Amino acid sequence: MSIVAPDRERSATSHAITVYHPLRVHPVPFSEGITAYAVDGTPADCVRLALEVLLTDEDPCDIVISGINDGVNLGTDVIYSGTVSAAMEAVVMGVPALAVSLAEGCPPRPWQTAAEIAARCALQALSKGLADGTLLNVNIPSTPSSIQGVKITRLSSRRYMNGIHRRVDPRGRVYYWRAGTPVDNEGQAGTDAQALASGYVSVTPVHYDMTHYASLERLQDWRLDLL
Amino acid sequence: MSIVAPDRERSATSHAITVYHPLRVHPVPFSEGITAYAVDGTPADCVRLALEVLLTDEDPCDIVISGINDGVNLGTDVIYSGTVSAAMEAVVMGVPALAVSLAEGCPPRPWQTAAEIAARCALQALSKGLADGTLLNVNIPSTPSSIQGVKITRLSSRRYMNGIHRRVDPRGRVYYWRAGTPVDNEGQAGTDAQALASGYVSVTPVHYDMTHYASLERLQDWRLDLL
Repeated sequence: MSIVAPDRERSATSHAITVYHPLRVHPVPFSEGITAYAVDGTPADCVRLALEVLLTDEDPCDIVISGINDGVNLGTDVIYSGTVSAAMEAVVMGVPALAVSLAEGCPPRPWQTAAEIAARCALQALSKGLADGTLLNVNIPSTPSSIQGVKITRLSSRRYMNGIHRRVDPRGRVYYWRAGTPVDNEGQAGTDAQALASGYVSVTPVHYDMTHYASLERLQDWRLDLL
Repeated sequence: MSIVAPDRERSATSHAITVYHPLRVHPVPFSEGITAYAVDGTPADCVRLALEVLLTDEDPCDIVISGINDGVNLGTDVIYSGTVSAAMEAVVMGVPALAVSLAEGCPPRPWQTAAEIAARCALQALSKGLADGTLLNVNIPSTPSSIQGVKITRLSSRRYMNGIHRRVDPRGRVYYWRAGTPVDNEGQAGTDAQALASGYVSVTPVHYDMTHYASLERLQDWRLDLL
């Protein structure tokens, strides 16, 4: 098994890739039998480097497991998530992948339980196969004693209230923080947010084809031609 | 009309958002009647700031036009695109949006033609309405004299050959560049890549719900429960 990880926290990097400066890779001591590298790039950079450069023919990649992220990646938020984007980078390259995230909560956090759930999902994905271009986005509640089970879900719609905070610096100049309180529509049946809110693990198949097929026919009637 | 733009090129930033440092906004002189701001954040940050802070009640936002990007944003590449992500940020906030990109080519580039096509798409989107959660991703060929028309398309599958270059610095240390030659499957009927290759403008409806609905039923049979 190999681990390739960013050398610092990379929250909210989404599917950013590093194109303005070169990437450096540093081997890191780890448990016996596990090769580990730190990369000064984004999560998606790590996966690309791992699959194209760092993994050897003797240690090829069967599946990419991205995470375990500290905090959920639910609903619309997957578009901001470095964890999900790293798994997506693998899928784009034709390698099966999971993204795994553990909900915030009071310590001790159930990282071990989360790892066992991730392993189970990975084994099932390897034996049964995922649809082309599709990863599994797995979110785990932080209360292992009361986990109700696993639900197969769709992505919820998550919006943010009060998304920008305005402040004034000591020199009297205005600056802004991105902020916001997530508002999940937990009443949406069958969604990942609803599953988590009810104490379930959510497993959501996520794919990179964002075409809105239902709009294709409707748009044919639009008058877009310049002629 | 207002313009809110990153203060430098932000290629391949995808849907990254700035959470580690605050954002600064600087007014920029522009044409009469147009308010313009430069932001030291990502394209998605610009849209969030514009819609929550910078636009006034006297100048509310009817539609967000992201671009015109210098270079196409086709197929799978939309997951890396700051241009498309800025439009997506608007859609997440419930505001209609287009992403507009002009193909690379020899100068003079047809920026004016691209702007006219963008304006036409925007007017149609405002009068006919877009599906909930859906933006239009518009790509324009760089040969205006031979534009064949407009095609409503789906996203193509775009992969990269030789995605990482390995080099050695003057001190003898290895570094890597993200690189790669895009490989479009231009034979895929109905795709954006095929439309561009045939001299057409592509207009693709793109939405943020990346759930792979076709997998939902199949995954019900998986044995994922820990019990």
